Amino acid sequence: MSDAKTFLEAPLAPVVILVRPQLGENIGTAARAMRNGRLTELRLVAPKFGWPNPDAIKPAKGGAVLLENVKVYETTAEAIADLNLVFATTARTRDMIKTVHTPKKAIEIIHEKSQKGHKTGILFGPERTGLKNEDICRINDIITVPLNPDYTSLNLAQSVLLIAYEWYTKAYAQEVPASQLMARDEHELCTKKELDGLYGHLEGELDKSGFLRHPQLRPTMIKNIRNIFARIPMTSQEVRTLRGIISALAGKS
Amino acid sequence: MSDAKTFLEAPLAPVVILVRPQLGENIGTAARAMRNGRLTELRLVAPKFGWPNPDAIKPAKGGAVLLENVKVYETTAEAIADLNLVFATTARTRDMIKTVHTPKKAIEIIHEKSQKGHKTGILFGPERTGLKNEDICRINDIITVPLNPDYTSLNLAQSVLLIAYEWYTKAYAQEVPASQLMARDEHELCTKKELDGLYGHLEGELDKSGFLRHPQLRPTMIKNIRNIFARIPMTSQEVRTLRGIISALAGKS
Repeated sequence: MSDAKTFLEAPLAPVVILVRPQLGENIGTAARAMRNGRLTELRLVAPKFGWPNPDAIKPAKGGAVLLENVKVYETTAEAIADLNLVFATTARTRDMIKTVHTPKKAIEIIHEKSQKGHKTGILFGPERTGLKNEDICRINDIITVPLNPDYTSLNLAQSVLLIAYEWYTKAYAQEVPASQLMARDEHELCTKKELDGLYGHLEGELDKSGFLRHPQLRPTMIKNIRNIFARIPMTSQEVRTLRGIISALAGKS
Repeated sequence: MSDAKTFLEAPLAPVVILVRPQLGENIGTAARAMRNGRLTELRLVAPKFGWPNPDAIKPAKGGAVLLENVKVYETTAEAIADLNLVFATTARTRDMIKTVHTPKKAIEIIHEKSQKGHKTGILFGPERTGLKNEDICRINDIITVPLNPDYTSLNLAQSVLLIAYEWYTKAYAQEVPASQLMARDEHELCTKKELDGLYGHLEGELDKSGFLRHPQLRPTMIKNIRNIFARIPMTSQEVRTLRGIISALAGKS
């Protein structure tokens, strides 16, 4: 398989275990989300429509390579038997005593344990019904995504994506700079309308001056000029200052 | 509208602007993801199939309430005219000089600016083609999700979800503990005295049974046994359950 290298590069990633998944499409979109975050090993417990399921392939898109290595089990107990640490994603349940982590914290724990050679996994329940108590009482801790309490419903692929996103961030993107931002007085940031006024003013004067006289270069030049100013978090006063400068340069002040 | 309260509660959230969205279904699933993270204001620029679009309603599920207040614009410029700070999500590096943020950092900036009274927004491009340069040169900075470079493709709703997740985490869930023991009542956690009672009970029965008969091994065995239980954050009821188990095994129940 051409993509084997990717699998070899991710030996520490948690195994994703879909428990009694229903539609093949959802297995596919879950695999796609896994690929986004470089999670590589997918296991299924008693998939409703069996396995392999051709319905999974097209929705998996770039994750289709993961489907070739899927392992299928009859029970959750068998699917997690070789793992040392297993978490389960679920909304908070009231009738069990478990430690609950945010996705970020859960991934920190999993990452640390996997670095030490432990094999880890994360359970995801069926689309509508969620995990049963008999699944949850087999695992260590629970992962609950902090979401709007008025509407916490996520589909399967979205739950997998949030975990995959946190995994990729922790395992591969720790060194990605959050950003580079200029310090500036931010009390009077200009509106986009004021910026449009500046652009229109400047481009009008540049047209008159002949600066933009080559039609084939004009769009690129305008793009580049606008991007200079778009990069600067300017105040309304600074926009007025720049317009004054333009007028002055054009001999109209 | 019954849900008006939710909207009033989120005045600082960034506006979500979908630029030239294609399928109504994707507008719906984006609205659903917004609701997950308590983003409330949705704007559309030149939706391919017009607006309102009945195809959006069913996929929106719990986000359908947001569709009632959607505003539609002909151009990106008009859609962002009243905003002070606008970011755009894109995975593509273009020949433009822009500051790039992770979603987490971008949301930190947006949250800080919105606290100071600035109106903020985030652009999302069309499903297949992404944002055009003429859209991107109007906005301040770029948001790029750190993902597997072998496969960075996200659908529209997934991009919105990751932003909504970071927004909710920043704006509402800062106080959510990274890890928390989920019990019926946290105050029922057992006391150390109850744990000592458990240890004494267990060790007394193990002495009688002969399990601790080697005096030179006894202290280490007791230490190891106590450490198994010390690792478990137990409730008082669970301690009583374990003592019942000990009595039963010792033939005294």
